[in-house]
Amino acid sequence: MDTMLAARLHRTGQPMKLERVPVPKPRPTDVLVAVKACGVVPNLMNVLTHWQSWFPELPLPKLPANFGLDVAGDIVEVGELVQNFRKGDRVYVNPGLTCGSCPACRADDTMNCTNYTFRGYFGFGPDSQKQFDAYPFAGMCEYSTAPQHNLVTIPDNVTYEQAARYGYIGTAYAALRKANAGAGSTIFINGLTGTLGLGATLCAIGRGVTKILGTARDRARIERVKAMAPGRIEVLAQDEGKNVAEWARAFTGGHGVDATIDCLAPGTSGKFLMDAIYALRRGGKAINIGGVGEKTVMDVHWMMDNQIEFIGSNWFTTADGQAMSAMAAAGLLDLSVFEHVRVPLAEVNRALDGSLFRNGGFTNVVVVP
Amino acid sequence: MDTMLAARLHRTGQPMKLERVPVPKPRPTDVLVAVKACGVVPNLMNVLTHWQSWFPELPLPKLPANFGLDVAGDIVEVGELVQNFRKGDRVYVNPGLTCGSCPACRADDTMNCTNYTFRGYFGFGPDSQKQFDAYPFAGMCEYSTAPQHNLVTIPDNVTYEQAARYGYIGTAYAALRKANAGAGSTIFINGLTGTLGLGATLCAIGRGVTKILGTARDRARIERVKAMAPGRIEVLAQDEGKNVAEWARAFTGGHGVDATIDCLAPGTSGKFLMDAIYALRRGGKAINIGGVGEKTVMDVHWMMDNQIEFIGSNWFTTADGQAMSAMAAAGLLDLSVFEHVRVPLAEVNRALDGSLFRNGGFTNVVVVP
Amino acid sequence: MDTMLAARLHRTGQPMKLERVPVPKPRPTDVLVAVKACGVVPNLMNVLTHWQSWFPELPLPKLPANFGLDVAGDIVEVGELVQNFRKGDRVYVNPGLTCGSCPACRADDTMNCTNYTFRGYFGFGPDSQKQFDAYPFAGMCEYSTAPQHNLVTIPDNVTYEQAARYGYIGTAYAALRKANAGAGSTIFINGLTGTLGLGATLCAIGRGVTKILGTARDRARIERVKAMAPGRIEVLAQDEGKNVAEWARAFTGGHGVDATIDCLAPGTSGKFLMDAIYALRRGGKAINIGGVGEKTVMDVHWMMDNQIEFIGSNWFTTADGQAMSAMAAAGLLDLSVFEHVRVPLAEVNRALDGSLFRNGGFTNVVVVP
Amino acid sequence: MDTMLAARLHRTGQPMKLERVPVPKPRPTDVLVAVKACGVVPNLMNVLTHWQSWFPELPLPKLPANFGLDVAGDIVEVGELVQNFRKGDRVYVNPGLTCGSCPACRADDTMNCTNYTFRGYFGFGPDSQKQFDAYPFAGMCEYSTAPQHNLVTIPDNVTYEQAARYGYIGTAYAALRKANAGAGSTIFINGLTGTLGLGATLCAIGRGVTKILGTARDRARIERVKAMAPGRIEVLAQDEGKNVAEWARAFTGGHGVDATIDCLAPGTSGKFLMDAIYALRRGGKAINIGGVGEKTVMDVHWMMDNQIEFIGSNWFTTADGQAMSAMAAAGLLDLSVFEHVRVPLAEVNRALDGSLFRNGGFTNVVVVP
Repeated sequence: MDTMLAARLHRTGQPMKLERVPVPKPRPTDVLVAVKACGVVPNLMNVLTHWQSWFPELPLPKLPANFGLDVAGDIVEVGELVQNFRKGDRVYVNPGLTCGSCPACRADDTMNCTNYTFRGYFGFGPDSQKQFDAYPFAGMCEYSTAPQHNLVTIPDNVTYEQAARYGYIGTAYAALRKANAGAGSTIFINGLTGTLGLGATLCAIGRGVTKILGTARDRARIERVKAMAPGRIEVLAQDEGKNVAEWARAFTGGHGVDATIDCLAPGTSGKFLMDAIYALRRGGKAINIGGVGEKTVMDVHWMMDNQIEFIGSNWFTTADGQAMSAMAAAGLLDLSVFEHVRVPLAEVNRALDGSLFRNGGFTNVVVVP
Repeated sequence: MDTMLAARLHRTGQPMKLERVPVPKPRPTDVLVAVKACGVVPNLMNVLTHWQSWFPELPLPKLPANFGLDVAGDIVEVGELVQNFRKGDRVYVNPGLTCGSCPACRADDTMNCTNYTFRGYFGFGPDSQKQFDAYPFAGMCEYSTAPQHNLVTIPDNVTYEQAARYGYIGTAYAALRKANAGAGSTIFINGLTGTLGLGATLCAIGRGVTKILGTARDRARIERVKAMAPGRIEVLAQDEGKNVAEWARAFTGGHGVDATIDCLAPGTSGKFLMDAIYALRRGGKAINIGGVGEKTVMDVHWMMDNQIEFIGSNWFTTADGQAMSAMAAAGLLDLSVFEHVRVPLAEVNRALDGSLFRNGGFTNVVVVP
Repeated sequence: MDTMLAARLHRTGQPMKLERVPVPKPRPTDVLVAVKACGVVPNLMNVLTHWQSWFPELPLPKLPANFGLDVAGDIVEVGELVQNFRKGDRVYVNPGLTCGSCPACRADDTMNCTNYTFRGYFGFGPDSQKQFDAYPFAGMCEYSTAPQHNLVTIPDNVTYEQAARYGYIGTAYAALRKANAGAGSTIFINGLTGTLGLGATLCAIGRGVTKILGTARDRARIERVKAMAPGRIEVLAQDEGKNVAEWARAFTGGHGVDATIDCLAPGTSGKFLMDAIYALRRGGKAINIGGVGEKTVMDVHWMMDNQIEFIGSNWFTTADGQAMSAMAAAGLLDLSVFEHVRVPLAEVNRALDGSLFRNGGFTNVVVVP
Repeated sequence: MDTMLAARLHRTGQPMKLERVPVPKPRPTDVLVAVKACGVVPNLMNVLTHWQSWFPELPLPKLPANFGLDVAGDIVEVGELVQNFRKGDRVYVNPGLTCGSCPACRADDTMNCTNYTFRGYFGFGPDSQKQFDAYPFAGMCEYSTAPQHNLVTIPDNVTYEQAARYGYIGTAYAALRKANAGAGSTIFINGLTGTLGLGATLCAIGRGVTKILGTARDRARIERVKAMAPGRIEVLAQDEGKNVAEWARAFTGGHGVDATIDCLAPGTSGKFLMDAIYALRRGGKAINIGGVGEKTVMDVHWMMDNQIEFIGSNWFTTADGQAMSAMAAAGLLDLSVFEHVRVPLAEVNRALDGSLFRNGGFTNVVVVP
């Protein structure tokens, strides 16, 4: 176990190369994980090709670099200060790296680290390269180190492939948490059957959200989602041409919904985001976790008049992940709906082919070492 | 509809008398409700006989007085300023009356009104009599007025008898809310199959609580409760003689439970309350909604060392009740488990017979006009 | 005291007429207040002339109508159910009327009432006219009724004129509360010396906000504000042409400010609002209480990447008002900075002359019966 | 800088020995601090002599061990992963060590780490020895390593001696934070002029608490404290023999105080703790940070009837410490009141002499290398 296979991108636009490299050593507060499955999200292709032109303030790791956001695997080594994990523990690695010493990190508000960085994906801060340097291997490889803070235990009834899907499910989970969505809530999900939207729906069911509304395109998928919680889910097909806010408000006695969760795909017009906000009740919350990239015209006076909170939300905490594991263990989060597409590490470049996602959010592409 | 039948207690220790009295008129912000079912809780007999000696600071209404805590019925008249209710609406009336002008009331913290008062039961403040005077008829009668603030709508799939059970279910719901109990939580319920404890269990299931632990006495009821959410509920029979804290901690990898909900019956020793607190994790919350009346020896230094919050919680808000209705409408709060014992208003004194509660928390005694 | 003088607007664009009308009677949960001072805000002229074209969804009362938002006076009569107020009590009347029966009102979330309505100003809901009808007299008159819920007691060291300024101070106070601004916070105020901005500054000082940054135009007023809390306040004059975000970030070690409070005047470009948002730290909050009316282009992806919350905030609660009174009583909220312009009720139309506000936020125009 | 002087206790009851030992090396996420002042609290003598008999569940480090809780000093070396600190930075080291991998640590709830441990003092968990082993040198030495997470920057206007007092001030600060004490609050402090109580008073002033009530013994110190914020502080001398709850309630119109902060010394009867709780308003919070060690009889039914929260609170977060530094920098936290007693490291055993604390909470004993 001195060396391992790892895929690395040497140049934007070219395929990743498979290389044999030394297995990294865990630092005192790290573990070493043998990767069993690495999730691939539809946005990865955007990150690898367009990111620096779309969002120059969100840096990629210096090339050559290893990619791969969502890792599930087994712990094979623990650092000397790690007390609560053992060799053999099955874990999901939350890829959100934090610097550990900025005011937010020291305030236990790690999600708001000035240099928050997605291992194997991209960073949010000017010094994210330091995080990339500290954890140069992510998911498209055989072994990677991870900070103990980022480990989520996986229950027995969750497979590595399912756990490799935690990323977008967790992003949706965090949004629901910020919306305080649960017993008695009515929420609206923009893009209900997509990768993020399906995660939002599954988590909303598990959290006991009473009424789940949303929009989607594909009618077959709409029916499939509605069957997950009969009577609690209502979906407006986008081609019905109805006014979204009016449609949603009708389910709430006209008062409006408690929260909107925006799960729109990259490239979508911001118009749909604002359309959904008009469905909110006075005091409602709009959580944006979707891919709308364009600068968007917002009705700020209406939002003030109606005490709307527009909350940008990014990824999820380790605690969110642990709650998802507990829900899955208890049978409250149904991860059996996913259709896994397994791509061997040796064929890693094939995993970036967007056409693999042929069944919307139900498709789960994983790279398997 | 000028007069109605109402039961009134004229003297402690004597039976209530059935009398014909004028139907009260709703004030501008009130409604008039035709009572369809009035819940009777085991504690009512204590209130009517021992309350002033047990808790002299909790005043009863001046006699003669009408009693009856949990009312479900139909709105038959609305005050001139009531905008969102109509004749014919099916409602539960939250009996918690508030003064409306103390600092807490004006701060929208109505549960902490200085003179919070249970209509038809007892008060918490020195001036509670003013609330009793303002709403002299409660549940053991044909009609009663209620502030619009206190109305909870009942969904179609909830009967009046079921809604008349909202009181103790809601008390448990509020405790779970304060414990932030939901996805990922492990809670412990002291007295799991009693009137309060069963409410806590039903609400915990609906809120997506992952693991529900507790103690109870009757083994048949224990099995019945466990069958409600297989795999999520574990119960320790009180006669097993085990250390409660150790037993509960074993389900949490030794860390301790997130919250304890104390639902012990009046007359129980406070020792059991403190025993359960030792099951909490560092930072855990103990919510006391039970009937322990004796002054109780508490390990305050251990509670400080472990950052324990001991929260006295009293009844529930109208919003809690509305969330329960939404849960019931969505099929997440199962009210079908109750065995109703209907006592006609004409035989109201029979409803106070404690032996009617022969099936613990599953029994639901209601007075029906 | 059967009749009183009241100013009423009969037609938009015409002066208000002074009329003799019957003194209104308080309902059981109301009080009657003898008006001693009624605040006039710069926006009132906009409301009276442009509101229905600017914001058709924010209804004015049907004409003829009495106007006047911020009332300070003496209680002269109490309704039969009012327990905590007496004749002679000095009070400020929070003009925010609520319906009392919508889901938000029954959930004690009165600020989010579906038909929230400013007495004597304008409404936010489709049925606001019902609130106007229930409380037809506001501030530009001698007496008006008010719900007990809306009363804020005034301490001895606060004058009626000062209390008549609570409206915009309270709006700012609520924004600071939502920003959790206090010990250790760095906040940024857009429009620091205006009517709202000065309120935000005074409240921030009283709440112990450590560092107060902002922009303003008038250099004399800037110096005056800075002298209020030497060393804690830094102001960028708008004509300095600096990048606002860079300027503000420099005071925070580059991390960004905790919150922005937007207090811009009606008619200002939304560009300034977004400029300030870029000054926020990851996880920062932007509270908008200002007058930006135009639809505004927002960088929603940047806001998501940085976990920004954009919070529309509207007015303030009675509890906020009571906290302000406590601060003033303790010497922590300095209301001595205002320069009062007293206009007799008989000359009420003169109070609408915008030129009275010759000293920005320091000017306080009140109508005095 | 290869070796240093360090005081170590080899046997309970014997003096500490001064020894020359190797300077520890910082791990990748640590820094090395040159100690400039180490605070000594009155409780240290209890910890060194009685702790294991008083609280056997709170382990001391294995002997020989270095002690000293509150360290202020200069960073002289940073670990390879430390991004936001530099050599020469002046810091206070929060001594609360956390394991980093238990559920609470991974949930960013580090204060509730299962094995929370005070470096140089004692631990709270069964595995605290692992923390002691990882950071064997604390404050009574020349250099010690510290996790980056625990560093609080010290502003220029705060001396090392003042910063070495952060421990108990911070404990009080955290209690006030949990009580949400600020503008508009009335709080009651049990033991107002003691080491903890004085910290609570100073922080309450800085946070803008409107009214500060409390009890104390020494009349000269009472007057000194009252002069810190004239008109906002009222103190009951314990020998006045008044009913504490009645006395405190009289300042609140009879409603009761918002929070009590219990700062009683070790050995005090729990009776005083419960006496103060009766001063709370319905919904009030009692925060216990004091030394009451005996099991205490509590009126749990009254606490439930009045919705009292009894919160055990332990120490404070790094964020609390950073807020205190910001307050001090802004002139809102007055640290000039302390009378420092400097004891050279070479005479360290003299620092344990309780008689040094001759001026109550005003005395600040520090060991200076």
